[in-house]
Amino acid sequence: MAPALILRAVEQLPRVTSGEDLVALIISATATQALMPEAGDILVIAQKVVSKVEDRLVALAGVSPSKAAYDLAAETGKDARLVELILSESRAIIRSRPGLIIAEHHCGHILANAGIDTSNISQSEGEHVLLWPSDPDVSAAGLAQGLSQAYGFDIPVIINDSMGRAWRLGTTGHAIGVAGLDPLWNQVGGHDLYGNELRVTEPATADGLAAAAALVQGEAAEGNPVVWIRGCPRSSGRARNSRALLRPQSADLFR
Amino acid sequence: MAPALILRAVEQLPRVTSGEDLVALIISATATQALMPEAGDILVIAQKVVSKVEDRLVALAGVSPSKAAYDLAAETGKDARLVELILSESRAIIRSRPGLIIAEHHCGHILANAGIDTSNISQSEGEHVLLWPSDPDVSAAGLAQGLSQAYGFDIPVIINDSMGRAWRLGTTGHAIGVAGLDPLWNQVGGHDLYGNELRVTEPATADGLAAAAALVQGEAAEGNPVVWIRGCPRSSGRARNSRALLRPQSADLFR
Repeated sequence: MAPALILRAVEQLPRVTSGEDLVALIISATATQALMPEAGDILVIAQKVVSKVEDRLVALAGVSPSKAAYDLAAETGKDARLVELILSESRAIIRSRPGLIIAEHHCGHILANAGIDTSNISQSEGEHVLLWPSDPDVSAAGLAQGLSQAYGFDIPVIINDSMGRAWRLGTTGHAIGVAGLDPLWNQVGGHDLYGNELRVTEPATADGLAAAAALVQGEAAEGNPVVWIRGCPRSSGRARNSRALLRPQSADLFR
Repeated sequence: MAPALILRAVEQLPRVTSGEDLVALIISATATQALMPEAGDILVIAQKVVSKVEDRLVALAGVSPSKAAYDLAAETGKDARLVELILSESRAIIRSRPGLIIAEHHCGHILANAGIDTSNISQSEGEHVLLWPSDPDVSAAGLAQGLSQAYGFDIPVIINDSMGRAWRLGTTGHAIGVAGLDPLWNQVGGHDLYGNELRVTEPATADGLAAAAALVQGEAAEGNPVVWIRGCPRSSGRARNSRALLRPQSADLFR
């Protein structure tokens, strides 16, 4: 049989709240499900869960919009309090139009609403939205350290979120926090099947894993935010965080 | 154990040449490897193999560049014969600068060089490049029909290719030809964990599968272009081709 890439969702993870020990919850739910992580396995976890544990839920009632937020809210038709949060989470607005704000998050990722999410949030205590972790790479590093220590071998961690794409409909999972692996497959000096030197094709392994995991995480009521991945060929490059995935502004043709 | 998403590369596929029966080659290599496709499985195949079978290899020596090609070649530093082919494969040039041409392929996908590839091509008989299938959705439909007939149950097929992204480095697999499944997960009317109505998050399932498959296909000497995927939750939406993944120009902020 061929080597396989296998993704297993952890189905028993309880709903998390602020301040919980996410490493302990993951380990417990993984064990409950008789999943046995091995060296080489990679853990992918959805941003929403990390954000909730890190207390990134914000009540809109407590937000006072600035003049800039009111202006952008008028242009886009969005709630001015949400726009205020988008602005405070961003270092640049890339595009805006009615119904849409594409922003560059402080940590460099470019996406709609600076990643702020209004779904899968209980509305029973008033309108809330969920911000990204303030630095998803730091969050990933913390999880990787805790999990690696508990299991006794290195566990790379990817925090993923669904993003749209410039020219394509629908969303795919993208890596927004990375720890313990090289998110790009460094092929400099490699050769193809015919001995031609490979040029610029450098697979974004972490984004591929994030996209694959999103297939089993689900977005709706069946959501399983934690996924173990086994059998992924990986770059032998050094571990870097998700910043390695960001195109430098000087090479960006689309802002 | 949790339900798993499993991807297996077919490792015994021979190098293909123009006019071969790709369906027969896939079935034979799959059987050699003791892979047993089941109803619900999805086949992903790399564009390069489909293009070779469809005789899309072009000798640069036979290409006569137009004035427009010479101009764009001068601007980008690319071979004018390659640029001529990019222009003939495209309906629009979206961006260009030294070293880079982003084009809209005749079938609507937007990517570098209109998908024309110079790697994994034997250079022994002079410089050649490989064009996309003239319509990858038609190619996917043909493969899906042949495989479904041979196996006796429906085999959805995705043809994938690596693409760059506007704001991110590295490439991920994208679906450029789709048959037998809905490439978007239609969640209209769905609800999240808390009963909030889901809004615009519509996962691009086919692109997620294409990205996942690319992880095990490899790009360099270890390339395995055919991947079987088992256990993917799929939209119950109607089967559509890859055009469903294309953002209409009227909604495109980045051209």
